[in-house]
Amino acid sequence: MERLQQQMKFILEVDKVKQIIRQTYLADGSRKENDAEHSWHLALMAVLLKEYANEEVDLAKVIPMVLLHDLVEIDAGDTYAYDQAGLATQRARETKAADRIFGMLPEDQGTKFRNLWEEFEAYETAEAKFAHVLDNCQPLLLNDASGGKSWKEHTVHKSQIYKRNEHTAEGSREIWEYMQQLIDKHIQLGHVIDD
Amino acid sequence: MERLQQQMKFILEVDKVKQIIRQTYLADGSRKENDAEHSWHLALMAVLLKEYANEEVDLAKVIPMVLLHDLVEIDAGDTYAYDQAGLATQRARETKAADRIFGMLPEDQGTKFRNLWEEFEAYETAEAKFAHVLDNCQPLLLNDASGGKSWKEHTVHKSQIYKRNEHTAEGSREIWEYMQQLIDKHIQLGHVIDD
Ligand SMILES: [Ca+2]
Repeated sequence: MERLQQQMKFILEVDKVKQIIRQTYLADGSRKENDAEHSWHLALMAVLLKEYANEEVDLAKVIPMVLLHDLVEIDAGDTYAYDQAGLATQRARETKAADRIFGMLPEDQGTKFRNLWEEFEAYETAEAKFAHVLDNCQPLLLNDASGGKSWKEHTVHKSQIYKRNEHTAEGSREIWEYMQQLIDKHIQLGHVIDD
Repeated sequence: MERLQQQMKFILEVDKVKQIIRQTYLADGSRKENDAEHSWHLALMAVLLKEYANEEVDLAKVIPMVLLHDLVEIDAGDTYAYDQAGLATQRARETKAADRIFGMLPEDQGTKFRNLWEEFEAYETAEAKFAHVLDNCQPLLLNDASGGKSWKEHTVHKSQIYKRNEHTAEGSREIWEYMQQLIDKHIQLGHVIDD
């Protein structure tokens, strides 16, 4: 029973992800979403949007990857996509968090989870590239639905969104094209600053 | 682009799941959890606890199943496990909801999602049985962590929990054994009423 107890302890530890608040609002703008909600959304999107991945992707890898990609934020916190100071220390903070959090699991599963997280971060495989498409597209959909609420609050510029998405087309040309249309729309509306 | 637009519309529609509040509290008892958080938790548990399924299960089926199993609650609302009046009308309300919600998807994906939901509800396949183990175990873990908060609020009896879990051992004997230990503990503590 020791292995199961260790797994159950981990399952309770990651409950904390439900309290890590992101900068993106729900579609109706009523409140900001949390990491668990975000990760659930990405996993469902992976199932629905797989056909748009440039390369064939294995959902058995993409889905666990998006489900766990934000677990390090339990210790490291959410780093907003356009927070330069935070981004500078993000890797160090998240690596330390990964050591502790994935270290709670039985060794075989801890290694598997750690490797999936490292693969996501390395942004090299077809699965990692597609997972990043989803991770970048989902907040954009919510921003669009909520009238650019988070973009307006953070005075986000077009160049920041494009920099953030410089590799998105490598994962899915079609989804990136869709995303560009949304960005253009919100530039027209003045919610994103053209620069 | 029409197919992608239809999928994106669905992806935004299901954002509403983040606002469907369950009766279970987060592990720290600070607030009740919502369906998106719950579904994310189940999907991660599916990855970690697969080895305890009585029969071999296909995660490529279990994970989408748990990710989408509560989507019908967008229209039908959450029916608390021990709400007899609600349970009596649940199937009719949820079937109508499934028609509308899964009907928003392109036909191939709508049929796939509908079938997975029906499979979950039918409780017959190895995957459906395992998904129900997770769906019943997760709130129990949270109830344990939060000092039986939701059980106490609803004056839950042992017989209700056992009735709810009458088929749990069919999905996983080991997880059901673990769950029984937790239930016993909270009977001793007076959080669940022995009857
Ligand atoms: Ca439910």
